[in-house]
Amino acid sequence: MRMRRKRNLDERLSAVSDYIIERTILDLNMKTSVEKKDYIDYMQVFGNGNRVELEIGCGKGLFITELAKRNPNVNYIAIEMLSNVIVEACEKAQKANLSNVRFMIIRAECLQSYIPEHTVSRIYLNFSTPLPQKGYEKQRLTHRKFLEIYSKLLVDGGEINQKTDSKSLFEFSIAEYSQSGFLLKDISLDLLNSDCKNNIMTEHERKFVQMDMPIYRIVAYLPDKREDR
Amino acid sequence: MRMRRKRNLDERLSAVSDYIIERTILDLNMKTSVEKKDYIDYMQVFGNGNRVELEIGCGKGLFITELAKRNPNVNYIAIEMLSNVIVEACEKAQKANLSNVRFMIIRAECLQSYIPEHTVSRIYLNFSTPLPQKGYEKQRLTHRKFLEIYSKLLVDGGEINQKTDSKSLFEFSIAEYSQSGFLLKDISLDLLNSDCKNNIMTEHERKFVQMDMPIYRIVAYLPDKREDR
Repeated sequence: MRMRRKRNLDERLSAVSDYIIERTILDLNMKTSVEKKDYIDYMQVFGNGNRVELEIGCGKGLFITELAKRNPNVNYIAIEMLSNVIVEACEKAQKANLSNVRFMIIRAECLQSYIPEHTVSRIYLNFSTPLPQKGYEKQRLTHRKFLEIYSKLLVDGGEINQKTDSKSLFEFSIAEYSQSGFLLKDISLDLLNSDCKNNIMTEHERKFVQMDMPIYRIVAYLPDKREDR
Repeated sequence: MRMRRKRNLDERLSAVSDYIIERTILDLNMKTSVEKKDYIDYMQVFGNGNRVELEIGCGKGLFITELAKRNPNVNYIAIEMLSNVIVEACEKAQKANLSNVRFMIIRAECLQSYIPEHTVSRIYLNFSTPLPQKGYEKQRLTHRKFLEIYSKLLVDGGEINQKTDSKSLFEFSIAEYSQSGFLLKDISLDLLNSDCKNNIMTEHERKFVQMDMPIYRIVAYLPDKREDR
């Protein structure tokens, strides 16, 4: 049964291979991979020099494909660890014939091996695993060790848009952003009843909203150094 | 009726005059008062050089008098605009025979006329009027114009401890702190069910808790410049 599923998955991944940026560096040994670089050539991948945005943990891709449809002049890269999940995202992008989105099957720890420094305008963190237990702080995607990576990927003035249903991840993230050189704006404890326009719901978000649960939102941004001049 | 209440109030204020630091500068004209200085002499007021903490908007003083009881080696100054409210706070302090707390009947805008720069270790903002309506941002006690004042009063590494029942004031305050040079920690969306120990409830807080409403908490602190050396 397992083998059959795997063969099926390989076939599906192969059918959407145009949407997947291949990894050339093994990312299992994270220490090695951060040091080695195989930067994406955006011109080669997208055929243009439009600005780049990144989703970390795209799941089945409802959010990123809808975003890419709405903004044809922005290039999107979406990453996800699980190939059996990301394959659905690729299939959505293929079905919609999107030319401005690509996917990578990597961990967030390895982003610096592929994304050139200071080339990303915005990072999306949608409903990242909250890991509320003590001792799991370092695995949360807004732990300062990840924020340090994001700071290197983002352009001056670049921002992170985070949505979560987790009260504890929201509380944790605010402190981590603040203590890692990010400024905060557009905080909401109830996104759907806020001023926020054009919200695109993820798969998770739809479920939470149906359960009448509030969605928390944070925008964290790097100070634009050019403004200081 | 009004006269009688007023006479009564004058008598009560007179009976607790030892607890009130008299204003010597009229604070009605705020522009003038910020320029004129009549700094409090802490040694003269408290008879010691202990560290100083400040509550802005102390109401009837339940919080500050309890805090002063628990921490006899800290000096407390509490301000409140309404003399018919603060008189109750003074009476509580007098009844408890507290020597480490004093009150001022002034607006927060005028603090710089009385509090010497960089002498306050901690500021408490408890259930400040939320003023959620648009157009009232500048009157909120965490508007950046107030944070600028607090920055001048606080020592390096000094902090603001804020509690509120207002979702909108909480959202607003996080962004204002972050964009005014403060860092954030110990964020809670449900103070009573958090790790926070030794919480002292205010009059308002007791009501909200009885109504099963969550209390939001923020600690905003100034980076300690000595750490950079």
